[in-house]
Amino acid sequence: MTAGGKRIRPVLVLLAAEAVGGNVNDALPASVAVELLHSFSLVHDDIMDNSNLRRGRPTVHTKWDPNVAILAGDALIGIAYRSLLKSPVERLPEIGRTFTEAVVEVCEGQAFDMEFERMDHVPIPRYVMMIAKKTGALIAASSRLGALCGGGSPEEIASLTRFGQALGRAFQVQDDLLDITSSERELGKPVCADLIEGKKTFLLLTALRRAKGEDRTFLRTVVNRGGARRRDIPRVRRMYERLGVVREARRAVDDAIREARACLDGLRDSPAKGALFYLADMLGRRVS
Amino acid sequence: MTAGGKRIRPVLVLLAAEAVGGNVNDALPASVAVELLHSFSLVHDDIMDNSNLRRGRPTVHTKWDPNVAILAGDALIGIAYRSLLKSPVERLPEIGRTFTEAVVEVCEGQAFDMEFERMDHVPIPRYVMMIAKKTGALIAASSRLGALCGGGSPEEIASLTRFGQALGRAFQVQDDLLDITSSERELGKPVCADLIEGKKTFLLLTALRRAKGEDRTFLRTVVNRGGARRRDIPRVRRMYERLGVVREARRAVDDAIREARACLDGLRDSPAKGALFYLADMLGRRVS
Repeated sequence: MTAGGKRIRPVLVLLAAEAVGGNVNDALPASVAVELLHSFSLVHDDIMDNSNLRRGRPTVHTKWDPNVAILAGDALIGIAYRSLLKSPVERLPEIGRTFTEAVVEVCEGQAFDMEFERMDHVPIPRYVMMIAKKTGALIAASSRLGALCGGGSPEEIASLTRFGQALGRAFQVQDDLLDITSSERELGKPVCADLIEGKKTFLLLTALRRAKGEDRTFLRTVVNRGGARRRDIPRVRRMYERLGVVREARRAVDDAIREARACLDGLRDSPAKGALFYLADMLGRRVS
Repeated sequence: MTAGGKRIRPVLVLLAAEAVGGNVNDALPASVAVELLHSFSLVHDDIMDNSNLRRGRPTVHTKWDPNVAILAGDALIGIAYRSLLKSPVERLPEIGRTFTEAVVEVCEGQAFDMEFERMDHVPIPRYVMMIAKKTGALIAASSRLGALCGGGSPEEIASLTRFGQALGRAFQVQDDLLDITSSERELGKPVCADLIEGKKTFLLLTALRRAKGEDRTFLRTVVNRGGARRRDIPRVRRMYERLGVVREARRAVDDAIREARACLDGLRDSPAKGALFYLADMLGRRVS
């Protein structure tokens, strides 16, 4: 927890609670819970993805060992619920269900992500389904939980849930983009890791759809090999630019952020609503 | 789930609910939840302990791979909570807390268990603390959850919690004993696995405390080597008999079961109470 991170999910919980006119203190336990759950998923994903660096530090399974990382992740789920259960009691059943569905979806999303790595062809709608679970679910749950803890109306809860879903989509495509366009110093982990692992990112899938002739043959080789070799990376990057893949990813991010902003229209004006607008825009411009 | 198992935890939930005069249907969601949580812990423990066989079938990480097993276990926690949250809403906060503390304790217990494997000397009280978490916590939580779901009084809830704690202790020492005295056919997994892995079981710790001279030197070698070699097993077994270690373990099981039975004294007479007595006695005589 001390390694930092952007804390987007807990901030979302707190802002959503304020945006529906609630008391931010009522949302603190859920806010802590989503960040702990996020940490759990990072610790376990890093084992599965063989990642050695996270937030500029060695990952848990690298610093200790995989067994410690498995257990630390497991315990984090319990500790997350421990915090969640301190939420306002009137809404606890719905708060518990929202959080729990996110736990399950995060696991399902990661399962699809790993399965896709081994597949030749992944249609973009399947990719969108996967990120909706892997990344979208917890971000959507965060703004929904905030609305619930803040005592929002059914309409407010629905709007903030959709806001989180759109934001989650923007966030994941942006993540895919940063793998190619950011630097290790900014990211706190190696760049092009997705490409080397053969992850079916938005960029790779779009490139596979657009590429023809020699480009197509080359990309197919990368996929069949289960990922790019380090020396192939400059060529893939140039191809992504040339085929307009980077542009299309940027557009997908912008579209999702516009959609997210639109979900806020029905909310009463407040500093928190302004901050949610700002958060959405900032996510579209983030570099790490 | 289809591989069987004794289903002791869910049965405990249901019996405890009936024993406090509750409706068994109110305890069904919690009963499913504890069995799912137990499955989670088996799936992850089998990765960490490198176990290939469970309930006579290949373990998840053996049949698929460790990543699938990590994720399947994670998802089981979520699915367990999904069921738990269908419990009676009036007591949901306390039901959620009871279950969550068990999740955390199960993880802590497994962490101590792994840590003890690497330690030379583990005092018996530390071992008791470890099993109280690793095995006792979920069994205690099961009977407590049943009492909560069944609408028990504070005294009934306290009695059934203590009943579960004592039963959990009996259960784990019995487990340690069966590693030595049972057969692979009965257990559904290899015998003497604890001994080979160098697990600090009740038996090994008692033997280490009692052994003198040549026995002691030999046991120390086993510990320093991180476990017994296959050909050392008959000698260790004979030593356990000769030093009265098996007898002491049997006595520890019997004592804990007597303690568990005593916790039921305050409950009203009912068929469920009779069944709890029976369950306790049966656990003391189980062979798998």
